[in-house]
This record gives sequence, C-alpha cells and structure tokens, in this order.
Amino acid sequence: MRHVIGLDLGGTKTSGGVVDGEGRILFSSTVATPAQAGPDAVLSAAADLTASLRADARDSGLTVDALGIGAAGVIDSGRGVVVSATDAIRGWGGTRLTAELTRRTGLPATAINDVHAHALGESWLGAGAGMPSVLFIGVGTGVGGSYVLNGECLEGASFTAGHVGHIASPFAYETGTFESGLPCSCGGAGHVEAVASGPGIFSLFTRLGGVQAEDTRGVYRLAAEGHPVAAEALRRGAAAAGSAVGGLANVLDPHAVIVGGGLAFSGPLWWNAMEQAARNELLRPLAGLPIVPAQLGETAAIRGAARRALALNPVSEGQHV
Amino acid sequence: MRHVIGLDLGGTKTSGGVVDGEGRILFSSTVATPAQAGPDAVLSAAADLTASLRADARDSGLTVDALGIGAAGVIDSGRGVVVSATDAIRGWGGTRLTAELTRRTGLPATAINDVHAHALGESWLGAGAGMPSVLFIGVGTGVGGSYVLNGECLEGASFTAGHVGHIASPFAYETGTFESGLPCSCGGAGHVEAVASGPGIFSLFTRLGGVQAEDTRGVYRLAAEGHPVAAEALRRGAAAAGSAVGGLANVLDPHAVIVGGGLAFSGPLWWNAMEQAARNELLRPLAGLPIVPAQLGETAAIRGAARRALALNPVSEGQHV
Repeated sequence: MRHVIGLDLGGTKTSGGVVDGEGRILFSSTVATPAQAGPDAVLSAAADLTASLRADARDSGLTVDALGIGAAGVIDSGRGVVVSATDAIRGWGGTRLTAELTRRTGLPATAINDVHAHALGESWLGAGAGMPSVLFIGVGTGVGGSYVLNGECLEGASFTAGHVGHIASPFAYETGTFESGLPCSCGGAGHVEAVASGPGIFSLFTRLGGVQAEDTRGVYRLAAEGHPVAAEALRRGAAAAGSAVGGLANVLDPHAVIVGGGLAFSGPLWWNAMEQAARNELLRPLAGLPIVPAQLGETAAIRGAARRALALNPVSEGQHV
Repeated sequence: MRHVIGLDLGGTKTSGGVVDGEGRILFSSTVATPAQAGPDAVLSAAADLTASLRADARDSGLTVDALGIGAAGVIDSGRGVVVSATDAIRGWGGTRLTAELTRRTGLPATAINDVHAHALGESWLGAGAGMPSVLFIGVGTGVGGSYVLNGECLEGASFTAGHVGHIASPFAYETGTFESGLPCSCGGAGHVEAVASGPGIFSLFTRLGGVQAEDTRGVYRLAAEGHPVAAEALRRGAAAAGSAVGGLANVLDPHAVIVGGGLAFSGPLWWNAMEQAARNELLRPLAGLPIVPAQLGETAAIRGAARRALALNPVSEGQHV
C-alpha cells in the first residue's frame, strides 16, 4: 500500500499526517504557521513538518511517495499556485506552493484550497463516504463550502467555486429594508457570511443592543439561557446558514449536505434552527435529503489533501527529483 | 454524418427538429401539446411529429437514427421516466417517456428535463459554445436553470438539480420584515421565483398598488415610461434574478452565465438592473465573468435534446427494435 503526506496549511497552524491508501492517519503532527513571517517561512515550516513526518514513516519501514496540500486562499490546483488570499498569511498570494514544496522535500506535490480538501476528506471517508455527490458547508469564522461530485471538488473557472457564504441572504439585511445588507468580509453586503459566521452572529448581537457577551460562544451561552437578544442573533445566524443550505440543495441536489465548522458543533440550539431553516427551503423531491454534521474533525483536510496526493504518480524509492 | 431528432416537449407546444451531428437543424415543426388529454395523447402527438420529421429526412435521403427529448417535469434521464411534474400536462408524472416513444417510433430514445436541454443546446452551440462550464438561468413564467460542466448537465441525486428559482432572495421579502416571504409556486416562500418571474413581477406590481397594467409586459411598458410603481416592481424582479445569478456564480464559478427566458429579452431596463445586481454580488476573482443573453431562442432545447440523442448508440438501418 502507498503512503503519502497530507498537509492542512492554515493561517494559524499547519497540521500534517502520514496517510495510507485507505485514508488511515499513521502519524500526525501540528506546528504554528509563521504567518506574519511571510511565504518563505511558512513553506519552510511546512517542509520541516513534512520531513519530520517522513522520518516517522521511515522509522516504521514505510515510504512516503507524494505530498498533498490543502491551503488557505484561492488555489490554482492545476499549477499549484496561490492565486489570491486574505492577509491571514502575509504575502501569500502568488506563492508557488507545489513547486516550492517539491523543491524543499523532493516529493511530487499537489495543492488545493483547504475547504475543498476538508470536503474531499469528508466525502471520501467521513459523513459522505460512498455518496456520489456531497455539498459541504463549513460555518465558523467564515462560511465556506465545496461541492464534491464523484470524488472531485468543483473548483470552477477561476478556482473560486465553493464560496457558499457569498450569496445574498434575507437574514443579512437590516429589518425594515432590503436595501441595506450587513457588511461582508468580501467587500460586498447582505451575504450569508455577514450574518451566519461566528463574527457575524456576534456583530448582530451587538447591533441588536446585546452587551453581556464577549464572543460568539458567549452569545450561544446567553441564548441557551433564554436571553432574547442573544437568541435572536443566534437564530438569525443559524437560519441564514440553513436557508443557504436549503437553497443550494435545490440547485445542486446533492446526495447529502455535510455541515462542519465551529458552529455546527456549538450545540442543538444552532443545529436545530439551521436544519429547520434548510428544510423550509427544500423542494418536495428533496424532502429526505440527509443534512448531517461532519465526522472527521480536523483530520478531514489532511485526508482530503492526501487523497489528491494518492492520485499523483509516486516518486520511486531512490529516484532523484 | 449522423442525423437525430430532438424534441422540446412543453405544456403548450411540442417542437421538434431533424438535427445533424454538428447541431444544424435541417427540418423542424411544431404542434400543440394536447396537455389536458393526458400522457397517452401527448406521447402520440410527439410520436406523430417524430414520424413526420423522419419522413422529411427520408425524402432528402437522410436516415434518422435516434430520438432525444427535452420534456417538462423532473425527468429521470437514466430511466427516461417523468418523476414528477406540475399539472401543466395532466397526469404527466410517472410517464415512461423513452420506453413509450421508442415503442411508438422504433428509435432509441433519451430524455432530459427541458431546461437542462435548453442549457445544453446553448452550451453546445450558442452563447456557451467552447466553454467548459456554463450556468444557464431562464427567467420567464418561472425561474429555472442548469449548470453544464464539460457538456453534461448537473441533474442531481433526484434529478431535481437546477432549480435556481428556489433559493431565498432578500428581494422576495416584504419591505419591513424578513419573516414574511412572498409565496412561491413551490409551496415555499421568499424564493427568487416568487419575485423575479413574470407573474412575480406582476404580482408585486399589484401588491405595491399598481393598477394600470394587465400583465408583465404592461408593467415593463409602464416602467419604461417612468411609472414609479411599475419601475420598482420591475427593478426588484430584475435585481432578484441578478442577485441569484451573482451568488450562484460565487458558488459555481462558471466560465459564463447565460440568461434566457422571456424577461432576458424584455429590454434594457430589465437586463441592466439584472446585470448590475449580479455584478454587485460577485467576488473579485469573478469580476470579468461574462453574463450574456441566450442566443438560440426556441431551438436551444431541440438542439440540446439532439445532443443527447447523438450520444446514444444509433439503430442501424433495417435493424428491428
């Protein structure tokens, strides 16, 4: 059986694992991403992590033959380049991710956006295992997603596909007008992410006059205690996410929707409001649509990245790259 | 070169054409769909139309070897069966479309939903020719669509994909509350179709107190003359369609969006409001997204259906089916 390394390279930390052909993680490790030190430092940290995992494998008599990377940003998976990115990693846009990591590790490498990697992992081995199509949506600091069809993520013409947080939502408009959408991280307004993300819920809570919470977790806690403003903010955020899930299901008609991200695991108050809003939108033929939580936690992106590495031609032992 | 017949079978009329391997329509004809007489009459009319077109071809020395059908309703294209349908054609749900038409014509047959057929035609030979992926959206009596990737329509797990009119729209909510969505044809509320379709625009016009128009065309005319209520209804309908176009483009990242249906050709007032609303939603990497009108008119679905027939193994001359 082949063994590859999957990396989940985010703005805060970089996690990696030695993954076998069936998706089992044999060794794993996590380091901080030196995001403010720029791409060169970030790539070196990723290469060091890869070397360390590869040594673990070698000590067990296993040969790692390829590297898969799930990375923050819009990733051109054909060229292995970061097309554009937020400033979560300084200067990240333009980074030649696969070329640089192949140069540093000697391993053939492939890269894809981290949300796509996450969705791919879930559809391979998690909540979507065995399903021909899956819509993944992650609701946390942002709202992102990926549509996976027959084991391939839909990446789009400019590798921007999957931005499910950036569709208009009735819940992202101030009550009283459909003209003034809540400001969105993308520079637009009135999008799902503006109200459904963790920061969106907290921001709505303060807009509605709430003061007794310091973060989204605090809003959830207050809502669970019956605090009306917190309950309203949480309900609207959850409903915005659910409404998007339902509407996109009407468009994509996936075999299942997998919901991940921090809010998916915040508790039943959020989940039930989300699922009810989703089911409210569904066309009749979709009444039985499974809407299920993600199963693989933080290992999903590592496994998804590894899945893509397994599709590469391996470098043979001793071969010079 | 092969020749096939493509049919566009709708609730009002059934059109068909003899189509060659490059999508040229050599002969075409249209008959009324006897919708209220039920499936048997509808199938007989389609079979008669097919026979007549086949005779036209034969008179020119051409042999038709397969039949493609684009039909109203949710179509299981694998089995060639109408899964479900509105009552536009009485008793249409459950009809074994391909089996019955093969029995009546002797031609191998394939069927797909008519909006998918329309999108397929446009992506093959019309506004999307040469593009690897296209999002088609038709805005008329209803709002439907289809995402075409590498020449294949995304049909979904239950053949329900493409219902782009059934996603939540801020514009489909009464001003003053995000709780009361306008009623939608699907039984839900607050969907794009409820405000963006022709009937949706007309209904909004009357809700807003408009009285001087008798249909959507009349609303457009009044709007063009500067009537404020008509202008508002038209603008909101167009903005709802555009907002959905933009949001779905952020999710699917197609090479182009093709907009068809009656409203797409109603005039610049609608088109400009639609396109502006769409571009307002777009993420930066999509700034150059082509948003273009459909090009093939009513022949699109015939050609799209024919395209699928061309993918069938042909029946050979004299072969008994």
